[in-house]
Amino acid sequence: MAELQNDLFLRACKRLPVERTPIWVMRQAGRYLPEYRAVRQKYDFLTMCKTPELVAEVTLQPIDLIGVDAAIIFSDILVIPEAMGMHLEMHEGRGPVFPHPIRNEGDAKNLKKIDPTVDLKYVLDAVALTKKELNQRVPLIGFSGSPWTLLAYMVEGQGSKNFAKVKHLIYNNPKLAHSLLEKIADAAGAYLCAKIEAGADAVQIFDTWGGLLSQDDFEEFSLQYISKIISQVKGKDVPVIMFAKGVHYHLETLAASGADVLGLDWTMNIGDVRKNVGDKVALQGNLDPTVLYAGHEKIRDEAGKILKSFGKGSGHIFNLGHGILPDVPPENLKALVDFVKAESGRYH
Amino acid sequence: MAELQNDLFLRACKRLPVERTPIWVMRQAGRYLPEYRAVRQKYDFLTMCKTPELVAEVTLQPIDLIGVDAAIIFSDILVIPEAMGMHLEMHEGRGPVFPHPIRNEGDAKNLKKIDPTVDLKYVLDAVALTKKELNQRVPLIGFSGSPWTLLAYMVEGQGSKNFAKVKHLIYNNPKLAHSLLEKIADAAGAYLCAKIEAGADAVQIFDTWGGLLSQDDFEEFSLQYISKIISQVKGKDVPVIMFAKGVHYHLETLAASGADVLGLDWTMNIGDVRKNVGDKVALQGNLDPTVLYAGHEKIRDEAGKILKSFGKGSGHIFNLGHGILPDVPPENLKALVDFVKAESGRYH
Repeated sequence: MAELQNDLFLRACKRLPVERTPIWVMRQAGRYLPEYRAVRQKYDFLTMCKTPELVAEVTLQPIDLIGVDAAIIFSDILVIPEAMGMHLEMHEGRGPVFPHPIRNEGDAKNLKKIDPTVDLKYVLDAVALTKKELNQRVPLIGFSGSPWTLLAYMVEGQGSKNFAKVKHLIYNNPKLAHSLLEKIADAAGAYLCAKIEAGADAVQIFDTWGGLLSQDDFEEFSLQYISKIISQVKGKDVPVIMFAKGVHYHLETLAASGADVLGLDWTMNIGDVRKNVGDKVALQGNLDPTVLYAGHEKIRDEAGKILKSFGKGSGHIFNLGHGILPDVPPENLKALVDFVKAESGRYH
Repeated sequence: MAELQNDLFLRACKRLPVERTPIWVMRQAGRYLPEYRAVRQKYDFLTMCKTPELVAEVTLQPIDLIGVDAAIIFSDILVIPEAMGMHLEMHEGRGPVFPHPIRNEGDAKNLKKIDPTVDLKYVLDAVALTKKELNQRVPLIGFSGSPWTLLAYMVEGQGSKNFAKVKHLIYNNPKLAHSLLEKIADAAGAYLCAKIEAGADAVQIFDTWGGLLSQDDFEEFSLQYISKIISQVKGKDVPVIMFAKGVHYHLETLAASGADVLGLDWTMNIGDVRKNVGDKVALQGNLDPTVLYAGHEKIRDEAGKILKSFGKGSGHIFNLGHGILPDVPPENLKALVDFVKAESGRYH
């Protein structure tokens, strides 16, 4: 296979020298793009996830339209519980719903152990096809939810404000919680390995709901399962990015977890984090996603502050501090990407 | 007037010696209590807020039923924007709504400058009546939302996931945002001073949405207005508690803001925070509110960890890391309060 034409992202993950700071953004293949909405209008969300041609089409859109330095496969973290046997519905406006959530041992028993090469073959096919269509222009990122974040959805059945039901579970039946987390970690680890086999050049683990846990609970119910997945994936020798939103308190532990890159939300000061852990990992982030509602001058000002805060040297992958919001004008993201490309050279 | 029978809370606020750690919990006068729901069934929320007899009744309930060491006046942070002229509706299940939010200069012009002794007289009457009915058993806390948190509601018109509209405002029309924040800070400062005049023994400022801001934005759009209120209130010589949920990064700045007490959410390690800032302020918190879904043994274990983490000496007010959730069994809160009362003596 030909060499990657743009490997800035992969080099930055390994903290190798780069000519400029690479940039991609979470949810870059998504609703803010009219071209994405045009596809989405014709197919429901899960059909899109399960149709490799459609996945490849929308995954490539931000590469062509915005010019980001990495692609991330279009999918959803909830494909794992669905493969484990949970019926998943996507409700317009309300988001994903499991009508039969996991609440007790009986529900848990019905979850099957998955073989990703069979049960999630459609994702692997999509990765392979997307990789081919990318034609080595930029690297392709695969991803998974963390076991804790997946468990939270599986128990709540949907998004939640206080996550009362999964908290109920961990406090009143920790044994069941741990056996579920173990099962999910096995599935997620195997899934990420299979994605790498299928062509992913890097993987990201999203712990979207890690920040809902106290520090002790995070260690017990999230971190140990994340570490387990990372150990499993590390053998595949591609960079692992760990993004635990709101987990401001465990950055040093996360930096020692074996991940190559830590994703930071926008409440962190990337320069301070670099001082604390930047000799262990690369850092990804961390512009407030709502800054993309601002005018281009303000966007450039804020992006410039982040480049400056990180400072000179490699190990920075520019990104937002969370997913791009669906009502952001695409030209504002384009302005951000163009700015980072033009401006970051001076730091290298 | 007779002396306070239980002044543990006030002494802990000033880091003076206490025999045991005092405890109260945010939203302790609220829906988790059947006795509160019985009142609420007969009156709508705003009628309750505006009827001093009802305010006194529900404010006293957790003192009588649970035995907490401080009362906090039953009210809502949105009474300030309502007094400024915004029509406020309380929707069952959906929370408070301003049907005519502030979006531009024209909307802003309609906000009137308030005199709390006239426009919020009903709160002051409620404070005075509650103080009388408390009969010096425990201190009474008054509160206000921070200017940023109030602005967020006034611009969004309701709770929000991403607070896109208020972020739009601060990034695209910072001048208008600052003039609104100034106006709100003036109102909130005057309001807290009037509450103290009416009998409040301490005040708490809630910056519920401060954690949505990046560090620079927090300084620009929240902190400076909080500091302004604190300076104004400090002349009244009662303790000021500052609770900025999710603002993990600015604890040292907040500790230097003139507040006597910092409230901590449950993602902080109270022992670590004490090491960093505990010579400047007392600390309030910080049990994960969802721990009250657990059995009594687990509740005691987790509360014990927090007492131990803070360690020996005064300057700790036990509380939850956020408001008590409406579906918590009252006996679980009682178990927490009894435990803290029985167990904390050894740390003093």
